[in-house]
Amino acid sequence: MEFLALHQQIKQQTDDALSQLMSMLPAHAPRLQAAMRHALLAGGKRMRPLLVHLIGDTLDVPRRDLLTISMAIECIHAYSLVHDDLPAMDDDDLRRGVPTCHIAFDEATAILAGDALQTLAFTVLADYPMSELGDAQRAKLVSVLAKSAGYLGMCGGQAIDLAATGESISVAALTQLHQLKTGALLCACAEMVTLVCEDLADDSRQALIEFARLMGLAFQVQDDILDVEGNAELIGKPLGSDEGHGKNTFPALLGMDSAKRELASLHESALQALESLPYNTDHLAAFSELMVKRDH
Amino acid sequence: MEFLALHQQIKQQTDDALSQLMSMLPAHAPRLQAAMRHALLAGGKRMRPLLVHLIGDTLDVPRRDLLTISMAIECIHAYSLVHDDLPAMDDDDLRRGVPTCHIAFDEATAILAGDALQTLAFTVLADYPMSELGDAQRAKLVSVLAKSAGYLGMCGGQAIDLAATGESISVAALTQLHQLKTGALLCACAEMVTLVCEDLADDSRQALIEFARLMGLAFQVQDDILDVEGNAELIGKPLGSDEGHGKNTFPALLGMDSAKRELASLHESALQALESLPYNTDHLAAFSELMVKRDH
Repeated sequence: MEFLALHQQIKQQTDDALSQLMSMLPAHAPRLQAAMRHALLAGGKRMRPLLVHLIGDTLDVPRRDLLTISMAIECIHAYSLVHDDLPAMDDDDLRRGVPTCHIAFDEATAILAGDALQTLAFTVLADYPMSELGDAQRAKLVSVLAKSAGYLGMCGGQAIDLAATGESISVAALTQLHQLKTGALLCACAEMVTLVCEDLADDSRQALIEFARLMGLAFQVQDDILDVEGNAELIGKPLGSDEGHGKNTFPALLGMDSAKRELASLHESALQALESLPYNTDHLAAFSELMVKRDH
Repeated sequence: MEFLALHQQIKQQTDDALSQLMSMLPAHAPRLQAAMRHALLAGGKRMRPLLVHLIGDTLDVPRRDLLTISMAIECIHAYSLVHDDLPAMDDDDLRRGVPTCHIAFDEATAILAGDALQTLAFTVLADYPMSELGDAQRAKLVSVLAKSAGYLGMCGGQAIDLAATGESISVAALTQLHQLKTGALLCACAEMVTLVCEDLADDSRQALIEFARLMGLAFQVQDDILDVEGNAELIGKPLGSDEGHGKNTFPALLGMDSAKRELASLHESALQALESLPYNTDHLAAFSELMVKRDH
């Protein structure tokens, strides 16, 4: 299948599965349920499910395992966006062109929706359909996802980000920050898929995780670039929000030209990681192209 | 061992294990780490670990499984208190006589500390030492804990509580609210322990979960009573906060005398559930006494 059609198909399947996940919740707390649905289904690009499926297809992992892993990751990703947007955090009113959760609902509901979405990620990993091998790996999948989402990953990165806001930090520190805040969850995509692939050579596993790690950084560098010279309408929020929030960014620390060279260099390293693999990696190469050249 | 000494021992072991859990986090986000420690170690009564250990000792479950389960439950409990205390939620400045997390630190750090503590609960269940049987049950333990903590349990109950605040609801609705908000996690204590007990008769399992469910409700009724006529110094926060917050309570809906009769009736039912068990349940009976007669 052509890459763009494949992306569209994976996005649709993920959206459908997440929508069904929401529909299965009983109605006892309708406002909370609506807020969770809003957070989970308000137009994400589903980059992480795409990565999960592309790696999984490369390794011949059963599709139902990939869908379950994707759903869990999207629950974590959606919860993190809801909490990051809160007034006490980044205080953002718009995301993907629609009101953020605490604007569409209220702050208490947004906090709870984030909390319940995080929990739901672990329910999905513990309970949702998997192949026999996937079923045997549930506890390890929980371990990897929790590590990437908590203090050792995303939450730790967000805390470092908050501490660094308004301060001037080094490129190395900014890289570590994004490695935790964005990179850890992308690495988890690769690591989780490799857990449900029998007999994968360890260097192939490492190369796939390294690819995901580089993609996480590239995603963030491009995010910083788009916040300066992107199209606000396409991005779905006003430009310049990083500078307005006193955030450290790659263009601000390196200059725009060097930030773009850094992006190209990350892309190059990612393609090298793919070349070491004994598989057809055309779709993963197309994915890397999408990540560094995206306009929203 | 005498009950009070046993309670003290379990509390101390839980505190030590949680303190060690915090010490093992690397220092990359020191403020977040300090906030997590504050939330986890600021003087809880460890009622849930006590229940876990008492049921586990009754069923001869290995102590290391009980400690791992207790740590995970306390991470969930601590996170829920941090988020419930936030300005957008119950807006409480004091808990157990010490400043709440967002007062001791700041709101963003408190949100993140709660988030990271929730994640940590699942890391503990996935990674911490367990017996062979416990190890084989990790995914089921995650399933039970997540169900009790998320939309189907604690988060759902908190959302119903928020919606009911300032409204007048029925006793049945208040009971359902507390069943989700407080009861679900106490039921999970019993359910998780029974998962690591081989060959437990199903009716014994049900009786233990029913005991925990009744204890959850009794705990809440006594909480409501203490908020009216307790000792503010012992409780560690001002009296009358429920009324001040427009919360529905059993004394407000039933009158104080009927609320106390309800508490006695829940206690009686709990003791009946214990009598159906083919074990020595003296310690569990002492636990129920502690729950309904506690003064803080």
